[in-house]
Formats: sequence, structure tokens, C-alpha cells
Amino acid sequence: MPTRDSTQIEAPRTAARICRALTEQIDRSLLPPGGRLPAERKLSELFATTRITLREALGQLEAQGLIYREKQRGWFVAPPRIQYDPLKRTHFEAMVREQGRAPGTEVLSAQQIPASAAICEMLALPALSSVIQIRRARSIDSRAVLYVEHYLNPAYFPGILDFDLRQSLTGLYASEYGIRYGRVQFGMVPSVLHRQAAAPLKVAEGTPALHITRVNCDQHGRIIDCDLEFWRHDAIRVCVDVPDRAEV
Amino acid sequence: MPTRDSTQIEAPRTAARICRALTEQIDRSLLPPGGRLPAERKLSELFATTRITLREALGQLEAQGLIYREKQRGWFVAPPRIQYDPLKRTHFEAMVREQGRAPGTEVLSAQQIPASAAICEMLALPALSSVIQIRRARSIDSRAVLYVEHYLNPAYFPGILDFDLRQSLTGLYASEYGIRYGRVQFGMVPSVLHRQAAAPLKVAEGTPALHITRVNCDQHGRIIDCDLEFWRHDAIRVCVDVPDRAEV
Repeated sequence: MPTRDSTQIEAPRTAARICRALTEQIDRSLLPPGGRLPAERKLSELFATTRITLREALGQLEAQGLIYREKQRGWFVAPPRIQYDPLKRTHFEAMVREQGRAPGTEVLSAQQIPASAAICEMLALPALSSVIQIRRARSIDSRAVLYVEHYLNPAYFPGILDFDLRQSLTGLYASEYGIRYGRVQFGMVPSVLHRQAAAPLKVAEGTPALHITRVNCDQHGRIIDCDLEFWRHDAIRVCVDVPDRAEV
Repeated sequence: MPTRDSTQIEAPRTAARICRALTEQIDRSLLPPGGRLPAERKLSELFATTRITLREALGQLEAQGLIYREKQRGWFVAPPRIQYDPLKRTHFEAMVREQGRAPGTEVLSAQQIPASAAICEMLALPALSSVIQIRRARSIDSRAVLYVEHYLNPAYFPGILDFDLRQSLTGLYASEYGIRYGRVQFGMVPSVLHRQAAAPLKVAEGTPALHITRVNCDQHGRIIDCDLEFWRHDAIRVCVDVPDRAEV
């Protein structure tokens, strides 16, 4: 093929080359999880390219969840994704700890409010019901990765707003109300962070996210609450191991 | 609150107002699935706003999967998402038909190739093995929504490249090789379309996607193949209904 010197053609190739080089360094842990990349200026010198092409490459790696950016701090290697298995009956804190990581929870707000039409539908409540809304930001190894809104049917949880809501709600339900989760329905769609979710995760509105909706029944089959979760796209891997039918 | 006339403050509010208005029209089916939106020029007149603000609003709705853009054709209301349930033992064609939609399959390439290290690992093959790679684009109601690479252990599927590979591989495995799926392991991460996946889906490289990896065993517990699926982010909703432990 004849050599062509057009920048238009070279730029994507250079970006692909930078992506491969950085991916290899990350895969071999020469750039360890959580580690900071050199400054963009240094990287463009290293790869002998423009800032524009370099940023294109960094943007691609960010979209794949390999690196992430922190405002005014630069680029970092993304920590390993948490494995989220809907079939395992666990909760955020236990799941994170079991994977050798440190969970954290911040309560953003907790109050009784009029339920939106969508929440009424999910909780099978009549129109104009009120619900308990608890908004929390949850972190793994001090990095905020999950924004969640819990909506509780107030009939089942009198006085719950008086407890310390940083703790696991699953634990609180069991110890204080004798309620444990029964059937759970999950829905998952790729989405983006809306403004309220983006702020506590310290990223820009519109950042890619995995939006997980959970509708939870208790041991008696009553719908007790639902959760609207927004995960940073690079923090989660959903895994489902479906056994052979014959084994079940 | 005092009125402020700064465009910097007004633009996000206007964009939010446009999003709400269009979402409402879509929710009530005044703009039906698959329907085309009026031209951007008309929409900016209607909402008395600039093209920039209008595009910001349309971009937000696109990220949420409510509308999508076709090159040189304009904006369309996204069709309903297909419900993808990893616990249901089905395949693409059956799943799409069961939901009242029309599946389509295009074979992009089919050949025996040296397996990459990643594929060797997934199929538990020794280094420098060869595999059968089948690349397909799959559509729902004539809209290409899924790019998939199948990798088959050639030991179990002699001569498979001679068949019409537009048909369901699940069906072909059963009818020609006496092989049915046993245990299946799913992994799902939000990602973006790489160049090879974006082209057959007729969208730009870097478009948001849900990347689903399946590693499939047969009824004897042997790993027979794996699938790397890239779904348009707006075409799929993963749902998992986990029954109460006591009911299982």
C-alpha cells in the first residue's frame, strides 16, 4: 500500500497504537490499579503525538473503563470492577468485603415524600401514596462508585428514619423489623448519570453508567421497597452463572 | 427568585425542559416507536431555542436510549428494548420472536483462525490453538442492534463452516452435532463499540454499548464455544427475576 502522510489517516492509527501500549502496560500491572498516569504533556512527548490525538486515545480507554479522570488531578488506572451477581443473595457491604475491598456509605438525604407515578407503580401503591426515600452514595476503597435511591413502603418500616442509615438496610430490616428479602426482580440498562447522581460521584453529568433497578419482596411475597442504582460504568461487572438445567 | 438572563444558566434549564416535553410525548405514544422527530430546525423554532441547546437536549435523550440518530436521516424514537433474561434458555431468534419482533441475521465472516490468548483462556484451549470464528450482525425489525463474535472449539464442530450460518447456531448444534447448551457463564459490562462492531451497526465508533460475554458448556460440561456480544445501548434491557430462596 502506498504510504500516505495525511494526518486524518494517521491520527486514528496513532490513537490505536497508544491504546494498545497503555492497555499492555495496565494488563501487566506495570501501571497498577489506582496508579496515576504521567501528565498529558509527558505522554504526548512519549508517543510523539499531539494532545488532541493523545486525548482521543485516553478517551477510548476511559470509555472501556480502563482508566478514569479526576478533576484537576489527572488520569488514573481504574481499580478492578466489582463482580455483581444478582443470583447471590448479598448486599453492597458484604459483596464489597467478600471481594477484599473496603465499602463506604454516605447518606445524602432521607425523608418521607409523595411518591412519583413511577415509584407508585413499582411498589404497587395507590396514587398519591407517600414513600420513604433514602438517597445514598456508596464507595469502594474510598472511590464513590454508586448512587442509589431507595424507596420504602412506609407501612412496613415505621420509625426507620431514626436509625443510622449508613448501615446496611438489609441488616436493619432483619434486626429491627423481622423482614428479609424474598423474590427480587432486577432490570439493567446502560445509561448515563443525571445531575443528582453525578454530583456525589464527583463526575460530570452524562457520564456513562449502568442503571440497575431492583424491586424487592419480603419473605411473605409483599413488595417492600425498590432501589434505583446508578453505577459508574467502569466500576461494575455483572456476572451470572447459569447451571445446566439437568443439575438444578 | 430573581429572574436571570444569563444564557449559561438558561441553556441547561431549556435543555431540561425540552427533554421533559419530548419524553412526555414519547411516553404517551404521541411520538410512536420508530417515528421520526421533526427536523432540528423545526424543533428549535418550536422550543424557541438555539440549535446548540436543542442538540444538548437530544444528546441527553439519546444517552438515555429514548431516541437515536441515523446518518443524514434525522432523529427517531427508539423502539422498545428487547428483554434479555440470562436465566431463560433461549437464543436470539426465539427471544426476539417471543417478544413479537422480527429477528434478522447477517454473516459478516466465518473462518478458522489462530486463537488469541484471551480466547484460548475462555475456551480453556492450549496456546496456539486454532478456533472457528463467526462474526454476525443481528437485527430486530430490520434495525441492526447486535454485533457478535462466536468462537467455537473446532474439535466439536467439524464441517460447520459449510452450513448456512445465518440460522441459529443453537439449532445447528442440536440438529447436526447432538450438542445442547448446559452451564452458561455470563459477564456484562457497559462499554463502547469498537470499529469492527460499529460499522455493521451503522453507528460511529465509540457509541455506548452493553458488552456481554458468554462462555458456554454443553450437556457433558465441556466448554464448546464463547460469544462476545456488543449490543446497542438503547436496544437491550437485561432482566433477572430471582425467586425467593424458599420457593426454589
